[in-house]
Amino acid sequence: MMNDTKPTHCLHLKRIGIDTYREQVAYLHRHCPLYQTEGFRALSKLEILADGQTILATLNIVEDDQLLSPSELGLSTTAFKQLGLTEGTPVSVRQPPPVHSMKAVRAKIAGERLSQAEYTAICQDIVAHRYAKEELAAFLVSSAQSGMDREEVLFLTRAMTDTGKHINWDEPMVVDKHCIGGIPGNRTTMIVTPIVAAYGLLMPKTSSRAITSPAGTADTMEVLAEVNLTMDTLRHIVHQERACLAWGGTANLAPVDDILISVERPLSLDSQSQMIASILSKKLAAGATHLLLDIPVGPHAKVTNMRDAIQLRKLFEYVALHTGLQMEVVITDGNQPIGKGIGPVLEARDVMQVLSNDSKAPTDLREKSLQLAGRILEFHPDVRGGSGYHLARDILESGRALEKMNRIIERQGKKEAVDVAELVIAVKSNHSGIIKSIDNLIIARIAHMAGAPLNAGAGIDLNRKLGDKVRKGETLYQVYTSFQANWEFVQEFIHEQGNGYFIAG
Amino acid sequence: MMNDTKPTHCLHLKRIGIDTYREQVAYLHRHCPLYQTEGFRALSKLEILADGQTILATLNIVEDDQLLSPSELGLSTTAFKQLGLTEGTPVSVRQPPPVHSMKAVRAKIAGERLSQAEYTAICQDIVAHRYAKEELAAFLVSSAQSGMDREEVLFLTRAMTDTGKHINWDEPMVVDKHCIGGIPGNRTTMIVTPIVAAYGLLMPKTSSRAITSPAGTADTMEVLAEVNLTMDTLRHIVHQERACLAWGGTANLAPVDDILISVERPLSLDSQSQMIASILSKKLAAGATHLLLDIPVGPHAKVTNMRDAIQLRKLFEYVALHTGLQMEVVITDGNQPIGKGIGPVLEARDVMQVLSNDSKAPTDLREKSLQLAGRILEFHPDVRGGSGYHLARDILESGRALEKMNRIIERQGKKEAVDVAELVIAVKSNHSGIIKSIDNLIIARIAHMAGAPLNAGAGIDLNRKLGDKVRKGETLYQVYTSFQANWEFVQEFIHEQGNGYFIAG
Repeated sequence: MMNDTKPTHCLHLKRIGIDTYREQVAYLHRHCPLYQTEGFRALSKLEILADGQTILATLNIVEDDQLLSPSELGLSTTAFKQLGLTEGTPVSVRQPPPVHSMKAVRAKIAGERLSQAEYTAICQDIVAHRYAKEELAAFLVSSAQSGMDREEVLFLTRAMTDTGKHINWDEPMVVDKHCIGGIPGNRTTMIVTPIVAAYGLLMPKTSSRAITSPAGTADTMEVLAEVNLTMDTLRHIVHQERACLAWGGTANLAPVDDILISVERPLSLDSQSQMIASILSKKLAAGATHLLLDIPVGPHAKVTNMRDAIQLRKLFEYVALHTGLQMEVVITDGNQPIGKGIGPVLEARDVMQVLSNDSKAPTDLREKSLQLAGRILEFHPDVRGGSGYHLARDILESGRALEKMNRIIERQGKKEAVDVAELVIAVKSNHSGIIKSIDNLIIARIAHMAGAPLNAGAGIDLNRKLGDKVRKGETLYQVYTSFQANWEFVQEFIHEQGNGYFIAG
Repeated sequence: MMNDTKPTHCLHLKRIGIDTYREQVAYLHRHCPLYQTEGFRALSKLEILADGQTILATLNIVEDDQLLSPSELGLSTTAFKQLGLTEGTPVSVRQPPPVHSMKAVRAKIAGERLSQAEYTAICQDIVAHRYAKEELAAFLVSSAQSGMDREEVLFLTRAMTDTGKHINWDEPMVVDKHCIGGIPGNRTTMIVTPIVAAYGLLMPKTSSRAITSPAGTADTMEVLAEVNLTMDTLRHIVHQERACLAWGGTANLAPVDDILISVERPLSLDSQSQMIASILSKKLAAGATHLLLDIPVGPHAKVTNMRDAIQLRKLFEYVALHTGLQMEVVITDGNQPIGKGIGPVLEARDVMQVLSNDSKAPTDLREKSLQLAGRILEFHPDVRGGSGYHLARDILESGRALEKMNRIIERQGKKEAVDVAELVIAVKSNHSGIIKSIDNLIIARIAHMAGAPLNAGAGIDLNRKLGDKVRKGETLYQVYTSFQANWEFVQEFIHEQGNGYFIAG
């Protein structure tokens, strides 16, 4: 049917040196005959066809002959890379077919319940880049707002799991842990993983980088070792050490999740259903069979009360049950940051102190890590119920966990030591009394403003925690940053929002 | 506070010849020191400051030294134009302040009711281009889905009206008409306006162009006359003729509506609340005091039953009452297209046939126009209730309406006659019987596929209407198009979806 018009559709491919990140952009010259006759509008979606490949891209119109001629089709760097052809290749362009699954999104907006087939179609279209940002937002908002019932959360989890790769480890037990987040510090994964692997369990841990928080496990591990590993390297390390601590981004696990998060985060949307599907789909795709899930509860945590925590736990349990994932949920104390350091370098210091049985190691980080490691060890049939904690402590105190961690670091590629940032400013108490609360959000925000995680040495080091006595003028915490301007941002923020500490009587 | 960092923020402005339509784009070189230190990410929003001006733009990263140097900041053509400065001007860049009204959007997502102050803040932020497309979608979906109560619709209408210009005509009565749309043909405005103006009422009509339909009033009028008028020209014409038939885009009336529609349309969102606020805010900003609103009802119209039509009418009436707009609602027959022609040239032909009292003029278009004109005339205190229709008919039959239309055309700038498109294909009946229904959506879709409104001569000419007898093989309608490819699209579509006619008995 397109035969008649094919000749006019033939343009020559050109790489345009513009990085448009997740949005694929195509460039046509304003005098391109195709643009004239087809009635494309700027920002409409185009389908680009060449050599049996197709990609979708958003149209920008070029007026500059130097950049593009009327007989060329330009692609932004990521789009060019995805199409994977050389410059000059003849390409044709057409209006993309309508995105059928948007019908289901509109049904969701109208308050309807969607089927497994509909969630699958939505996820497949998203991962094929058929959804524009506003369409992604429409899907996220509609499912956040009217809510999804628990079966729909299961449908979405399955659909998300199936959009990317599945890793198969060929072992009956593959353990994993996950925290729903929101607690600064809290770098337990880097302690739990070497303990559990030292015992012999398989724990191929892939983690994310921070986007809005001051550090993710991948950011902190990156201070010590390379985390950007190919699947082959990762498999090799796991084969030898029973564990790794890598960035999960290269594995293409549940890639639809990354696309959804890229819209969800800037909108600060916070939907339980999306969170559950996001977490469990990644774990299932990563080949986990056993998962320990940490839900911190506290006045400034993601979950603020026990009733909500239990409701969330049940929803997680329902989806895990129906996807064949053995899961334990622990509800933990989320009243304050865990450990002392916040930011990659400072958190890595805390982690290594715990693993080294250093007397300066933060007790709360050590204790929480042992509790979690103990629960994971108890997944193994040989470990008696209730004995996991002591087993974990033995492994830690004997130095076997540190030894395992050092081997993982060596295999992934040990990094040069990075110092904390050079500017240090003490934030002091304005009152004398006892510390009654610490606001996780404010502490995280300040560490982020100081430059963490992009500036690995930036962050916060806490001197005082909940229940400590403090006198007026004593230092509550130090802020580390590399730039005077950042420190001024922090000062202004503390002036407006407070320092995050509430001190009384 | 920014003083310390100001020197590093100083970049030189460059116009990049890329048209990104409604999305403002800024370009930074990957090796720009500012990009390195500030931790901007591709696609994040930037605030650009220069000479007391600020604009917001989405960041694209340039890798091509020819396009941009590391000491330059590039702006896409629309962004460059909006900033309004010359190339080379020193500009600084920073993270934009958080968009406070997004807090209200998140409250709406959570199902809360918003206040007048919140709707005002949202509209002001939207019109200042502070919302990304996904944020616009979040606002639209959240207010479409949980619905807005009638007071919220009023709040939104007021907020939208206040975001742009208000036209003041300095007359006690300024009449307007509006149809909620969905019925192909139906070009009554171009008949009603000259009738009403010939009587002496002030009707400064501004209309939109079609986006998804085969023609808007502005598209059809543009076949006959220039419609892209400056405010000064428009005022001058209205002063002399008591009327105009212009495109409303240049008047900057309720500009927030255009931004919302640019996201709403591609999503095919269809929210009553948004529609009411959109229509009434434009009318209020245009200075209308009296409005006749046409709600067509039919199985393939926007409103499919009388109960919904009455509910919609009441919502319109509530908002009109509280914004001081005198409004009459007429619920009309939306069972089939109005007139014979669909597409700019064919609709303009129908309109001129009615105004010329041509015996070939479509009766339904003439009758509906007279009914509507009659109701508008009755807004005037001198016109007795019930006598408007006859008055309108007298004005039409006497030739005064045609004379008025010709003067409006002359003043706006008469256009050369445009022919219908050269390829004509007859769509024939597959059955003998009586025409029981005509699907407006299918007819509109086919006319659109044929090329209307961009190709003014493309469209459909209906031979048969509801209730007509037809024999197998007789022509139901002709499709006019300029390109063989379009005709093939139409054929494929008719093959899959039918020709829009249901014939029985």
